[in-house]
Amino acid sequence: MDLLSIKDPSFLKTMNTSQLKELSKEIRSFLIENLSKTGGHIGPNLGVVELTIALHKCFDSPKDKFLWDVGHQSYVHKILTGRADQFTTLRQYKGLSGFPKMCESEHDVWETGHSSTSLSAAMGMAIARDIKKEKSYIVPIIGDGALTGGMALEALNHIGHEKKDLIVILNDNEMSIAPNVGALHNILGRLRTANKYQWAKDELENLLKKIPAVGGKLAATAERLKDSMKYFLVSGIFFEELGFTYLGPVDGHNFDALFEQFQYAKKTKGPILLHVITKKGKGYEPAENDTIGTWHGTGQYKIETGDLIKPVGAPPAWSKLVSDTVLRLAKKDDRIVAITPAMPVGSKLEKFAEELPDRMYDVGIAEQHAATLAAGLATQKMKPFLAIYSTFLQRAYDQVVHDICRQNLNVFIGIDRAGLVGADGETHQGVFDIAFLRHIPNLVLMMPKDENEGQHMVNTAIQYDDGPIAMRFPRGNGYGVPMDRELRTIPIGTWEILREGKDAAILTFGTTIPMALEAANLLQKQGLSVKVINARFIKPMDENMLHDLFSLNLPILTIEEAVLQGGFGSAVIEYAHDHGFTNTIDRMGIPDQFIEHGSVNQLLQEIGMTTEEVVKKVQAIAPKIQKRA
Amino acid sequence: MDLLSIKDPSFLKTMNTSQLKELSKEIRSFLIENLSKTGGHIGPNLGVVELTIALHKCFDSPKDKFLWDVGHQSYVHKILTGRADQFTTLRQYKGLSGFPKMCESEHDVWETGHSSTSLSAAMGMAIARDIKKEKSYIVPIIGDGALTGGMALEALNHIGHEKKDLIVILNDNEMSIAPNVGALHNILGRLRTANKYQWAKDELENLLKKIPAVGGKLAATAERLKDSMKYFLVSGIFFEELGFTYLGPVDGHNFDALFEQFQYAKKTKGPILLHVITKKGKGYEPAENDTIGTWHGTGQYKIETGDLIKPVGAPPAWSKLVSDTVLRLAKKDDRIVAITPAMPVGSKLEKFAEELPDRMYDVGIAEQHAATLAAGLATQKMKPFLAIYSTFLQRAYDQVVHDICRQNLNVFIGIDRAGLVGADGETHQGVFDIAFLRHIPNLVLMMPKDENEGQHMVNTAIQYDDGPIAMRFPRGNGYGVPMDRELRTIPIGTWEILREGKDAAILTFGTTIPMALEAANLLQKQGLSVKVINARFIKPMDENMLHDLFSLNLPILTIEEAVLQGGFGSAVIEYAHDHGFTNTIDRMGIPDQFIEHGSVNQLLQEIGMTTEEVVKKVQAIAPKIQKRA
Repeated sequence: MDLLSIKDPSFLKTMNTSQLKELSKEIRSFLIENLSKTGGHIGPNLGVVELTIALHKCFDSPKDKFLWDVGHQSYVHKILTGRADQFTTLRQYKGLSGFPKMCESEHDVWETGHSSTSLSAAMGMAIARDIKKEKSYIVPIIGDGALTGGMALEALNHIGHEKKDLIVILNDNEMSIAPNVGALHNILGRLRTANKYQWAKDELENLLKKIPAVGGKLAATAERLKDSMKYFLVSGIFFEELGFTYLGPVDGHNFDALFEQFQYAKKTKGPILLHVITKKGKGYEPAENDTIGTWHGTGQYKIETGDLIKPVGAPPAWSKLVSDTVLRLAKKDDRIVAITPAMPVGSKLEKFAEELPDRMYDVGIAEQHAATLAAGLATQKMKPFLAIYSTFLQRAYDQVVHDICRQNLNVFIGIDRAGLVGADGETHQGVFDIAFLRHIPNLVLMMPKDENEGQHMVNTAIQYDDGPIAMRFPRGNGYGVPMDRELRTIPIGTWEILREGKDAAILTFGTTIPMALEAANLLQKQGLSVKVINARFIKPMDENMLHDLFSLNLPILTIEEAVLQGGFGSAVIEYAHDHGFTNTIDRMGIPDQFIEHGSVNQLLQEIGMTTEEVVKKVQAIAPKIQKRA
Repeated sequence: MDLLSIKDPSFLKTMNTSQLKELSKEIRSFLIENLSKTGGHIGPNLGVVELTIALHKCFDSPKDKFLWDVGHQSYVHKILTGRADQFTTLRQYKGLSGFPKMCESEHDVWETGHSSTSLSAAMGMAIARDIKKEKSYIVPIIGDGALTGGMALEALNHIGHEKKDLIVILNDNEMSIAPNVGALHNILGRLRTANKYQWAKDELENLLKKIPAVGGKLAATAERLKDSMKYFLVSGIFFEELGFTYLGPVDGHNFDALFEQFQYAKKTKGPILLHVITKKGKGYEPAENDTIGTWHGTGQYKIETGDLIKPVGAPPAWSKLVSDTVLRLAKKDDRIVAITPAMPVGSKLEKFAEELPDRMYDVGIAEQHAATLAAGLATQKMKPFLAIYSTFLQRAYDQVVHDICRQNLNVFIGIDRAGLVGADGETHQGVFDIAFLRHIPNLVLMMPKDENEGQHMVNTAIQYDDGPIAMRFPRGNGYGVPMDRELRTIPIGTWEILREGKDAAILTFGTTIPMALEAANLLQKQGLSVKVINARFIKPMDENMLHDLFSLNLPILTIEEAVLQGGFGSAVIEYAHDHGFTNTIDRMGIPDQFIEHGSVNQLLQEIGMTTEEVVKKVQAIAPKIQKRA
């Protein structure tokens, strides 16, 4: 059928299984074809084609509510709800989002991006439904990886207690982005193979009948024996203990099996956990054979060969630079332990894991635990390196405050994907970290100008023994600058003058330095001489240099690829006021709004963070000096 | 024995059980006597007297490491490690902390305050121990309430997977602060009564021998049947499934039983979960009979009667004012649902629970889930009221950003205990909230000047339908101001002039308003006329009023009982810079350090937040105007 003609999922109601199988094939071809051009989360979506079709056939969205945990597996849902025609714009500026979005469709009832939120939200919807005395099925679809996130576990605990009607679909593909870890993963592993015992149920019951009748003390054990039998007969005792009815495991690529389980789930009261086994990347060989997560989300690729199309000769990724430098130091320094919450590939820690397996811990999707695990290590004079994306560090804010910084422990936080991240959009922009970290006592926060300074900063962080220290670095690749062979340390709280100037000063760091330098060059041609400072320490700032700049009465422009409220520019004006300086200060950064998806350059353009704007802003503040003079 | 003479726990090694029982009595008397004068966490500590003694007898602290989760149950540990003489200063300024503190003793190896951190930290210590090839026991002691916190569950998942040696003591008293909720609580309830079956073990084995031998298909079930038997024989299948060896339940007030279990735990490889049943308040009748949490932590009390000594005729607590107003509105508005993460008593939601039980949810210690549960409700046009302490809202930062504010959902967050909290000290000060909330798009943040404005603000929040809205309010009681009978709404983003003045303006809100008014009165006598503004909306600010103030070229002082970095004062100077105003602005607030325990007044004094300092600061900024004039 023509997928572009789909308006809503009602057409599925009259289709038979063989038609649905044909539809699955078409959807897979569509995804493989389209994503080869746009990139996107190919693996997760190929894995849920049948599951999504079956859900839309057996339930009535939007009356019944699907909550896609994390949400990158919602492409099939988007196709079935009338958005196939927008896939050419997937994850592009003003185009189709890679995640569920209420503004795109009434079928998107919950927006995701970060993991493990769907169960809590579903419980909220169930409470609302029951208060309003409405009838509907609420169906969160959560992966086995997302299930280990603390908030999902909190939700399981609450849902199992309250006994509201809720159908949790556990989409178990044995991976989150990377292969999953954790005890729960082991439990699921046992469950996956457990169904082979189920045929024995009847015979077991016969067997039990043969047990001679007993009385006396043993009678007291009858109830418990029944529980014990339940453990035998019902595989998912872990979930049963938590108050759920466990159903499954069921083959997530078998329509008839799915229909049967859905029908059973719809008839059953209380919370259900339906264990569905799917294969990530199903139907596209390169993705299906992926064991480490390469095909979780990709850029463009060649369909025939499965070759990823990458820019030739690109400088190394920031993540790689940082992790490799930590590894280089760790080989000589036994104190160093690397920790990642489920991002060994994204954080490029595979090599570390290979070379120092006893000192690298992937804790699964568990940011809170990761941060405090690092704190625990630091109490024992170890030097933990917590590799975490800026947006996910939000999950560990309290742990950074309460456990790491309050105890002033030597944890090195590598804040990856800081600043705008592009295609993943508003749920993933790493733009809040400065504002949510700057006010925490004891923390040093820094960002390098290029990968050479980056490696020295990593070394600085590892050698620093006075408390917690964090280094932000952006998504993507470095500039390819020459790398010093020897690592050195950068004195804490020191900035660097990149360009001298006497009419104004630009204070900036990291990714916005090139913009500042370019603007300064343009301004030079107009006769304005602009100093450019690499303000590599966001906290503590270089107060000597600040004092000098302010004393010269230079007008100042701060630039940061981060939110303006409470950010770096705010710190600079705080300094000015605290020290009685009245210099003109203008700030450039992310305004008070969530920033959607698009290329980083498009987004910077949209919010007015361009070389041209820097030029204009400096022109606007610099003449004030001249008037006064 | 003389508890004051204890230097370290080594004296316990030679004591026999009857001597230890005697010691327990003495410690209980000491606690009941001392806490009757100082207040403190009486219930939790009376519950762990024998447990703590037994731990110190069987393990070797500080080589072996005790991690007291939450930490308010560490008083007995403090007595046994040589701090009995400091109990007269408990929780007082410069006195003994109510929580573990590394600076107090080498036996305090991990500092706590917030719950659920001990397992992650213990795992970090275990990894460090094994890398360093050291030998020691690492023993986190965690309550059944704290165990439901998401990060503790994340840690269980990781620990069970990694199989490091670790002895988790589950101190199960069936309460956290209030009675516990959640499926895990139900599991523990079943386990508590399960030991009565254990005597049947031998007989069950005999019974199984009587089962006739079977072959064929049934042979395949043998392995599973063994698992099933394990479920029968070993009670804690939930924890066994997670990879722990479950021991217990054991009576936490029986020394010999505890010794036996500890010895067994020490010999067993891998992670152990030892389930210890204790009675909160044990040995002091009023505390022992407490079913709702009154005796969790108290002020002073009369020992004989168990009467709490409370100031006579004190105005109602802020928590009560807020919760009662929400209840008043909820009776007429079906959309309102109250949510608390384990603080029904502290947040004074008991009445709400009684009158509208279907619309009040205590989710246990689960701040992340609580916030996103609220978000889920809001998607269904409900009006959730999330009652949460400022310091615990830190745990839900990402949920506030990603789920509530990003989706612009109508959640009303009641931020209790905002500002300095006093005796609980640095782990509990509610001083970061403005800095970690102000930069989040879509959020309205406000704080009332008194309880009458407070009730109108609650009404404002409930009526507000344009997105998330949060109201901070302090710990403790209101002022006893007259209360309007009719509730009204306060226009969003409007401030109020409390006092006119032409020489300077003070912008402040909430608890620091009296200080500002008093200073203005003193300054008036010196001939300085100071305007005082109730800046009740921290975000959005009253830009009209700001514009007027700045246009008058008034020097401005901002005052906030919150961190200065990125706080309200910072917002004011941001406004000034963004609009080209060069008025003198000084800011008063919490400096860049963690603030320890003490009375709020002592702490304010220490950090220079007093009427006298306000006077000085205004004197310092006001003359500048006069010079210019």
